[in-house]
Parts: sequence; C-alpha cells; structure tokens
Amino acid sequence: MQDTGSATTSALLSLAEVEAALERIAGKVRVTPALSSEALDRAAGARLVFKCENLQAIGAFKARGATNAVFSLSAAEAARGVATHSSGNHAAAVARAARLRGVPAFVVMPEGAARPKIEQVRALGAEITFCAPTAAAREATAAEVVLRTGAALIHPYDDRRVMAGQGTAALELIDQAPDLDLVIAPIGGGGLISGVSTVVSARLPGARTIGAEPAGADDAARSLAAGRRMPLGEARTIADGLRAPLSDSTFAHIQARVSQIATVSEAAIVEAMRALWEGLKVIVEPSAAVGYAAILEGKIDVRGKSAGIILTGGNVDLDRLPWQAR
Amino acid sequence: MQDTGSATTSALLSLAEVEAALERIAGKVRVTPALSSEALDRAAGARLVFKCENLQAIGAFKARGATNAVFSLSAAEAARGVATHSSGNHAAAVARAARLRGVPAFVVMPEGAARPKIEQVRALGAEITFCAPTAAAREATAAEVVLRTGAALIHPYDDRRVMAGQGTAALELIDQAPDLDLVIAPIGGGGLISGVSTVVSARLPGARTIGAEPAGADDAARSLAAGRRMPLGEARTIADGLRAPLSDSTFAHIQARVSQIATVSEAAIVEAMRALWEGLKVIVEPSAAVGYAAILEGKIDVRGKSAGIILTGGNVDLDRLPWQAR
Repeated sequence: MQDTGSATTSALLSLAEVEAALERIAGKVRVTPALSSEALDRAAGARLVFKCENLQAIGAFKARGATNAVFSLSAAEAARGVATHSSGNHAAAVARAARLRGVPAFVVMPEGAARPKIEQVRALGAEITFCAPTAAAREATAAEVVLRTGAALIHPYDDRRVMAGQGTAALELIDQAPDLDLVIAPIGGGGLISGVSTVVSARLPGARTIGAEPAGADDAARSLAAGRRMPLGEARTIADGLRAPLSDSTFAHIQARVSQIATVSEAAIVEAMRALWEGLKVIVEPSAAVGYAAILEGKIDVRGKSAGIILTGGNVDLDRLPWQAR
Repeated sequence: MQDTGSATTSALLSLAEVEAALERIAGKVRVTPALSSEALDRAAGARLVFKCENLQAIGAFKARGATNAVFSLSAAEAARGVATHSSGNHAAAVARAARLRGVPAFVVMPEGAARPKIEQVRALGAEITFCAPTAAAREATAAEVVLRTGAALIHPYDDRRVMAGQGTAALELIDQAPDLDLVIAPIGGGGLISGVSTVVSARLPGARTIGAEPAGADDAARSLAAGRRMPLGEARTIADGLRAPLSDSTFAHIQARVSQIATVSEAAIVEAMRALWEGLKVIVEPSAAVGYAAILEGKIDVRGKSAGIILTGGNVDLDRLPWQAR
C-alpha cells in the first residue's frame, strides 16, 4: 500500500507546514483577490471579506492542496506519476499539478460524472479510469491503478500535504485583511478547514474559525456535538462538493481548532449563491455559498465584526441555475 | 448654463490629468484585480489580461469617472449637489460619489428604466426625476433640474474629468501587467477609450489601443473610417451600455490615439459573455464582452501577443441570461 502522507502521523498540522506549502506553490497557483461589497456589508451590518478561491486556477481552492502534494514528492516518486479518485474539483487540481510537474496523472472518476468535468480533466492530460459510482468502487479502482502504475495516491482531503496546501488560502487572506474577528469556511471532508483553522489559531489567536455545512450533510456538526466522528449517512444537498465524510484526521483538527459549526438550509444556499453573484459579480458554486448562507440565516453572529469568508469554487453549469430550476 | 468641464477646452486629455484623477479617487473606488485564465489563453494563443471593472464599486468602471468629477468640484460647487441623466451605471456612480462627498445627487432616469437600477440609485440616496425615454427629454429634464437646484451636471462621457477618471483603469492595468502589446476597450460614448488611449499612448508608446463595438452600434468605426463624426442612427444591440453616440471630444481622442476599431456580431457578444463567465468565473454584462468577442471573431490579431482587455461592468439580470433567452 502506498503511503499517502496522511494517517502516518497523528499530530495536528503546524503553521510551519502551511507556510512551507505557500512557498512551495508560489507561482504555481494564483494569489486570489479578496473582495467586498458595500451592499452586502450594509445588509449584514458587518465587514465581510470574501476570499475568492472561485477565481483560483481550475476554479477552486483544490488547486492549492493538490499542487502542494504533487510538488512535495521526491523526483523518484513523482516520476511514477500521481493518482486520485474524485468526481469534482480535486481531479482537475491533481491533473493540473501533475502537468505542471511534467509527470503522469491517473484519475479515477465515477461513470456518470459531469461531462464538463471529464473533459476538463482530459484536457489537462490525465488518464481517466471510470468506475461504478460508489465510494467502495472508487477506492478499489484507485488501489488497482496505484498497484499497476506505482503512482502516488493523493487523497482529496485525508492527506496532510493537501490540508497544508488548502490552508495557504487563509495565509493570503490574513495578509489581505489583517483585522479579522472570524473566518468562515465550508466543511465537506474537512481538508480546507483543517488548514484554515491551523492558520487562524496560530496567526490570529483572538479570532475564531467557524465551519458551515448543509443541514443535509451535517456530519461535522453532529460529530463536534457528540465528541466523536459520526457517519455522514445519505447526503442530501445541492452543495455537491460537501457530500464527503470527515476523516479521523480532519475531525481531530475540527475538535481542536474550530469553535462553531453552522448548518444551513438548501433554500439559504440558493439565496446566498444568488446574492453573491449579484453583490460581488463573481460566480460561486453552491458549495461555496454555505458560509454566507449561514450569515443570511442568522446562524453566525457577525454584527459589528470583521469576517473573512472563503468562497471555495465557481464551477457551475450555466444552463442549470438553481434559482431557475425551482 | 452650467460649465460641465468638458467642451470648454479642445485640447486632448493629458497623462497628468489621469494621474491626478488616480490620486483624487484613491481609497474612494477599488483597485480592481486583473485576472487571466489558462484555458482562455490557450484558446486565443495569446496572453490575455482582463481588467475586472465588473468588480469595481457599483459593478462598473463608471465609478471612476463620476468619483473624479464629483471630487474635482470646489466645496461651494459641490454643496449645491450634482446632477446627471442616465439609465445605466453612470447614474449609480454619480449617486455613490455624491454620497461619499456628502452632497445631494439629482438623477434623471427614463420612465421604464430597469427596476433594479432605479432601486440601486435610490438606495444610494439620490433624488430621481423621471422623464420620457428619449435623448431630448433626458437633456431637457436634466437642464430643468440643474436650473432648479444649481447642481453641477456630470455628463456620462462628454466631460474631461470623467474621461480622466475612466483612464485610471488603464494606469492600474499597466501596473498589474507592464508588458502589454495592446489594450482593448469597448466604445459607447467614448469616455473610457479616451482615457485609456491617453494612458497607453503616453506610458506604453510601443503598444496599441484598440476599440470594440457592436456592429449594430458602430458609429465609432464609421466615424474613424470617414474621418468625421458620424451619427449613431438606431442602435440595435444587446450591449445596452454601448448605445450612445460619440461626442466631438471623444471622437477627437479616438482619431488621435486609437489605432483600430473592431465591430462584432450579436452572436459573438453572447458567446464571449458566456465564455468569460466560464473561463474567469466572473459576471460580465454584454457591453463588457465586446472586446473578447472581437478576439473570438478574429477581428483583432492577438496571436503570440500580450493583450489587456477591459471588462467594463457586471450588472445583469440573472433571471434573463441571453444564452437562455434564445
């Protein structure tokens, strides 16, 4: 079995690892802008700073973690290529990072994955292996690919190199807006918030990291309340990027460094998505809107505060907008 | 009659006026990001740098010119307020600038203007006077408002303070991307390209300024070809921000400083708009897409070059997207 660089050590991520990641990926991913809107600020009675990872390469923060992981490999490891399983933004992120490093990428995608996603991954030069659309089939197929190729597996979030890479978004955000009282990030598998909370707790000790997730995929909120990792169950949400269970490692970061997890309704996600399109003039996908949705629903108290909100991605089907489908 | 600060001198705008404008509006409007897309670069075989004025305050570059004009007034002039006539982004820009300066704004809008526009202008504290939807009625009503209030009229483009303000977008762009071979800007009334071409000709003497406009509102292309200002005629285009005739002053700038004007089809505008949404993950309005449309239609030769493209605004009705209406 391949060492994924993750579960081998149980220590929490350090700020130094995130800082090293930022140095490693500099020039390979974008420094994304932090945007604000006078209208959204007035509506919230707060200063809201949106970190626009939807404007990141491949349209999502996933470029950070994948690039850090791929460029962390030794030359000998990298030469055998990299592999992952994902139907979403992580697949494109790994394919792009492999191309930047000049090594092969092997991506396992479920049959029935969105055609634009498949085309994007293929255009980035990755070899795609299709599998049945179950978690078990994905992992089994990825294991086969790794066995066959010797490629290094890069898990979408259960990998400390990936978590450290995602945390670089928070390092940039704090540079762009040094006076934040809180930072809000969506929670899917927990890779992003593990990195972000590591940065916030070390660099802004007076500030809080708050997670947001759909009520229909609320394993993080339930896990934090129960004090142990709870199963995701059937995820029912439009926020397809957040339909992933925590890992033991990401849950440990949440327990140690996240002070609150807000859950939001599907209606609030759609309302927030549209309000962000109109207020910021940027395209965010449903998963990226949960943080602002939590503010709209009054689940996070921001009045009079300065809040950083990570907009995680902008990959949507422009022919199927959720406010029109209803 | 009020001195509008425009036609009183026939000299072309100087770089110093644009630099003074940038200093005057610093902190009052945003420094907007310049974004690129690997996919759009590959498609064009060029390096494309998009100056995102759709992410400007009020969602359009118009904030620059209006803010420069309003803050150019003496305290005594400003105290009587400012006035304009516009159904579009300039109205919101003047209202916002007046609010920043703490003076009244009087905006003449045509009956039947888009409701979100009316609400935006009202929310910014301006007093709205409605008029019949003709150019003559707008100007007559604006003249009445000026007579009644003593407010200073701020024309949307036939005003050198406005032109200088719009040019600040190019000053920022050149800071963000110093190696441009050409800069492309849409042409409506010509205020933006007057300011932009002033900056490009002075600061990047080896580079060209190229205008783009809809074939259905091509008075600038016809005027440049004829060597004299031609009437607009009936403008037929989805790019509502570009349905304005040149003024003598903006035409003089185009003649002196713009090397080419590309005209584009309506289909290309819609295709470009969608490609920008997908490639950059930002929302642009049809008027903002004409520069990229000219590249898509092969009207501007960018292969192997580095091109700056000004995305002018992002105010669209999200319930009526042009690729869905067809």
